[in-house]
Amino acid sequence: MYKLSGTSIIGFARGKLAEAGFTAIDPSTGKTLEPRYSHASTAEVYEAADLAYRAFHHYRNASGKVKGKFLRRIAANIEQLDETLTPRAVAETALPVARIRSETQRTCNQLRLFAELVEEGSWVDARIDSADPNRTPVRKPDVRSLLKPLGPVVVFCASNFPLAFSVAGGDTASALAAGNPVIVKAHHAHPGTAELVGLAVSEAVRHCELPEGVFSVLFGPGNGVGTQLVKHPLIKAGGFTGSRAGGLALLQAAASRTEPIPFYAEMSSVNPIFIFPGALAERAGDIAAGLHASVTLGAGQFCTNPGLIFLPQDGSEEFVNKLRELISATPDFTMLTLGISDAYCHGIDKLVRSSRVKLIAGPERIKEGCGACAALLQTTVESFLADEDLSAEVFGPSTLLITYAETSQLIEVARRLEGQLTATIHATQTELRRATELAGLLEQKAGRILVNGFPTGVEVGHAMVHGGPFPATSDGRSTSVGTRAAFRFTRTVCYQDYPDFALPEELKNDNPLGIWRLIDGKLTRKAI
Amino acid sequence: MYKLSGTSIIGFARGKLAEAGFTAIDPSTGKTLEPRYSHASTAEVYEAADLAYRAFHHYRNASGKVKGKFLRRIAANIEQLDETLTPRAVAETALPVARIRSETQRTCNQLRLFAELVEEGSWVDARIDSADPNRTPVRKPDVRSLLKPLGPVVVFCASNFPLAFSVAGGDTASALAAGNPVIVKAHHAHPGTAELVGLAVSEAVRHCELPEGVFSVLFGPGNGVGTQLVKHPLIKAGGFTGSRAGGLALLQAAASRTEPIPFYAEMSSVNPIFIFPGALAERAGDIAAGLHASVTLGAGQFCTNPGLIFLPQDGSEEFVNKLRELISATPDFTMLTLGISDAYCHGIDKLVRSSRVKLIAGPERIKEGCGACAALLQTTVESFLADEDLSAEVFGPSTLLITYAETSQLIEVARRLEGQLTATIHATQTELRRATELAGLLEQKAGRILVNGFPTGVEVGHAMVHGGPFPATSDGRSTSVGTRAAFRFTRTVCYQDYPDFALPEELKNDNPLGIWRLIDGKLTRKAI
Repeated sequence: MYKLSGTSIIGFARGKLAEAGFTAIDPSTGKTLEPRYSHASTAEVYEAADLAYRAFHHYRNASGKVKGKFLRRIAANIEQLDETLTPRAVAETALPVARIRSETQRTCNQLRLFAELVEEGSWVDARIDSADPNRTPVRKPDVRSLLKPLGPVVVFCASNFPLAFSVAGGDTASALAAGNPVIVKAHHAHPGTAELVGLAVSEAVRHCELPEGVFSVLFGPGNGVGTQLVKHPLIKAGGFTGSRAGGLALLQAAASRTEPIPFYAEMSSVNPIFIFPGALAERAGDIAAGLHASVTLGAGQFCTNPGLIFLPQDGSEEFVNKLRELISATPDFTMLTLGISDAYCHGIDKLVRSSRVKLIAGPERIKEGCGACAALLQTTVESFLADEDLSAEVFGPSTLLITYAETSQLIEVARRLEGQLTATIHATQTELRRATELAGLLEQKAGRILVNGFPTGVEVGHAMVHGGPFPATSDGRSTSVGTRAAFRFTRTVCYQDYPDFALPEELKNDNPLGIWRLIDGKLTRKAI
Repeated sequence: MYKLSGTSIIGFARGKLAEAGFTAIDPSTGKTLEPRYSHASTAEVYEAADLAYRAFHHYRNASGKVKGKFLRRIAANIEQLDETLTPRAVAETALPVARIRSETQRTCNQLRLFAELVEEGSWVDARIDSADPNRTPVRKPDVRSLLKPLGPVVVFCASNFPLAFSVAGGDTASALAAGNPVIVKAHHAHPGTAELVGLAVSEAVRHCELPEGVFSVLFGPGNGVGTQLVKHPLIKAGGFTGSRAGGLALLQAAASRTEPIPFYAEMSSVNPIFIFPGALAERAGDIAAGLHASVTLGAGQFCTNPGLIFLPQDGSEEFVNKLRELISATPDFTMLTLGISDAYCHGIDKLVRSSRVKLIAGPERIKEGCGACAALLQTTVESFLADEDLSAEVFGPSTLLITYAETSQLIEVARRLEGQLTATIHATQTELRRATELAGLLEQKAGRILVNGFPTGVEVGHAMVHGGPFPATSDGRSTSVGTRAAFRFTRTVCYQDYPDFALPEELKNDNPLGIWRLIDGKLTRKAI
C-alpha cells in the first residue's frame, strides 16, 4: 500500500535524503532491513515545529466531533495496513505475528476510545460559577473554565511497543484527542513500522482536512533530533516511554528551557509482588504458572514485568520447584535489539556474580546475537535490604525471588522501595485484612496496586493508571494509558464575564454539546 | 488570646530560641515589632518533615467528613483571632483594617469552600471499569482509581496577602483538603500574623485529634529553611506565591532533587488590557475609573494588577485625561516592605528614564521609607515592541498606557507576550466578534481572560483559574485559587481486582459516600 522512502514526514511533505542516517536490523537474523533512514536536519526539526505551531491555532479549537472522526480514520487506516505493516513490524522487532496483530488492535481500540471520549465531550471539566450582580460590596462576576490543549507535543516512540507506545500509540492518541499537534520522534529500532503508521496518520489529516502541521514524524537520534525537539520554544510538552537514562536526559532538557515544559517520561519499574503464606499454601501452582507467564510474556520486555517476588521462606518449595521447571522449559527468546539483549545478559550476569544471589534456573549458554534465555534468581530479604543493586531493573524475562521469614519484614521493604508502576499482593482475604499497613505504603509507592493478579497486561480504559512516583515516571501525577492520559496535555483556561457568543461551545448557556458541567458546584447536563 | 513567642511551630511543640533571627518592621513607622523571631534550625526542619511524613500515613486516609471538620475549625479559630490578629496584621503590612478584615473573611470562606468540596467528595474523580470474566483471549480485570494525596507539602507565604496566600491561605487549604500534611515557611514581613494563624491551625489539629505532624510553621530565610524544605526527601510538593527570582530558585531546587517534585510557583504577570476603539468611545470615563481602582487597589500590590494598557492613539484623550486626574489625586501609599517600595521606585525610575516612555502622572517627591505614589506612564506600541524591558512587571500602583494605530498591531503584541495570569479585552459586541484571532492568542498566553472587566479581585470558586503559562506560574496547568487548586497536590492511584472491603470508601460497590463516579465511562451516583 505505501512504499517506504526512508525520510521524515513533515506535515504533508517529506524530508530530504541525508548523509547521516541509520538502517533497521532484523533481530532474528542480524541483517539490515531496507531502506536506509535519513536523519532529520535541524531545518526540518524547525519546519515541523513551525508547522505544528501554525496548525495549533486551528486544531486547538477543533470540535470533539472533528477530532473523533480524525482518530477513527487513523485507526481505520492502520487496520488497512495489516499486510504491509505486520511483516515489517515482525521483521524489525522479532515479536510474533500474533503479538503484532494484537498490539495493532490495541492501538486502534485506544484511538477509538479517545474518539469516544472527545465525541462525548464531558472530559474537558467545564465549570460555570454564576454571576451575582447584587452581591455586596462588589458584584460577583460570571466565571467559566475548561481544559484546553497545551500546544505542539513531541512524542518519543518506545522500543518495546512498536505500535501501542509508538507513532500512533497512547501518547499520540491522547495528545491529539486533547487538541494538540504531535511531532513523533521515531525509534531507530523500527523505523519502517513508524513510517507506515506515520503515513496512515498523515492520510487521516488530509482526509479530515486538518492543517498539515497537526502531525509529523522525524527520524534521528534521541540526543540530536529528540533534544532539539524538546528544547524548541514552540514545543509545549513531551511524552516518552523508554530507559531511565534516556528519560532523565530529556526531562533535564525540558526543565532547563527558558520556559520549562511538562515532560512525561515513563522510565523504569521492578513491579514487586508480595506473596503471603496463606495465598502460597492455597495456590502455589497457580501463582507459579501465572508468574511464569507474566515474566516471560513478550520476552519480558514490558515495563510492568514483575522483577521482585517476595515469598515466605517456609512452605515455598512447591512454588519454587514449579517455577524452576517452567523457567527451565521456556524456549529461548529473540529480544528487540542487540542493546537490549546485551543489557539483559549483563544484568543477569551481575546478579549471578553477587554472593547474595543464587541462580535457580537460567542461561547455561552464551547468548548469540539478540538471543536471551529466561532466568530465575533467588536471595533473602536480608540480602535484598543490604544491597540496593538487587532492586535495579533487569529488562527482560527474569525475576528475583526474595524469601522472608516474617511478613513484618515486608513493611521495611515497602518503605525502601523506589516509585513503581505497579505493586501486587497475593494474599487470602484474612491476610489482606491484616495487610493494611503494607497496602497503604504500596499506595504511596505505586500507580497501580493489584490483588491476586499479575501486572503485565495494562487495560486501556477510563480507570487505568499507568504511571507512578519517580523514577517509575518523571511525573507521578500522570498516566500514559487510559483516557486520563489526555489530561497531561491540557491546561485550564478561564473566561470571566464573556458574552455567550464568544464562549467555547462547552461553556455556552444552553449547553449545545449536552455535556456534564459543574455549575455552581453541582454536576449537571442542564442548560442555564 | 495567643501570646507571640517568636519560635517555629513544629507539630504540637515549639522551636528553640536561636541566635539567628529577625524582627518584623511596621512599614508605616519603620519601627521594629516585638517579639524577635528565631530561625528554625536544620534539626527543626528535619523534625517537622519527619512528623509530617508520619502524620501522612494517617491523614492521607482521613475521610472528607474529618477533613471538612478540620478546615471549618481552622476557619472558626481564625475568626476568633480578630482582636489580636487584625491589629498585628495591620502593623506588619500597613494594609488598612478593612482590607485585613475582608482578607480574613476571604481566607475563612476559602477554607469552608474546601470543606464543602471534601465533604461532598466527588472531587476525587473516582472511576470504575468493570471486570468481564468472559472476555477472550484474557479476562478483563476490575480496575478502579481515584485521586490520592501526594505527601507532605511545603507552602511559602506571600508578602502581599498576609492571610489569603499565607499560613492558612489557598495553598494550605487546598493541600490539607487533598489529604496532605503542610509545613508552612512563614514570610519575614509578617511573622506575628503567621504565628497567630499558625496557632489557630494547631488548635484545630488538636481539636480534631489529628496527628500533630499534619501542620507546622517554620520561620527562617527562603534560601535557608525554604530550600532545605524543598530539598528534603520526605517533602513531596511545594506551593509558592512571590517574586520571579524567588520562585525560580525554589523551582530549580525542586527539579534538581534526586526525586524531582511538583513545585507550584505563582510568580509574575503584567496582566495586559486591550481597549478597542468602540469600547473607548462608549465608556471612556467608566473604563478610566475602573482601571484606576484596579491599579491602585491595595497599593497595586497584586499579581493581577493591570500593568499594560493598550489603547487606540486616536480618540483616547478623554480617557487619558480622566485617568491622569485620578492618578494625580491618589493619596500616597505605604507599601508592604522597604524592599517592595524600593523596587517599585526603581521600576518607575527605569521606565521614566527611557526615551520611549513619558510620565503622565506620578511621583514628584522622593519617597520616604515605604512610601509610594501612583504612577501613569505612556508609550507607543512600536516602542513597546522594540524594547522588551517595557513589558517587565513593576509591582505597585502604576500602569503603562501603550497607544496603537491599528487593532491589527495587537496581534503582534499578543504573539510576543510572555505567559500571564490574566488578559482583558474591552470591546463592543461587534468588536469582540471580530477579535477572535486576538482572543485565541490570549487564551494561549493567559490563565484567565476577561471581557469588559478588571483583573484584580480573584473570585474563590469552582471555575476560577489563578495560574497561567510560564513565567506567570511555574506550571501553567494549575491554579492556586479555587477548588481545582486541590488537584495540584494529588496523584491517581489505581486498584486492580481488589476485594470490596479493601477498597477506599469512594470506590466500594455500594457507593457509601454517594459521590459521582465514572463507571464504565458513564457518570453516575448509583451503586454497582
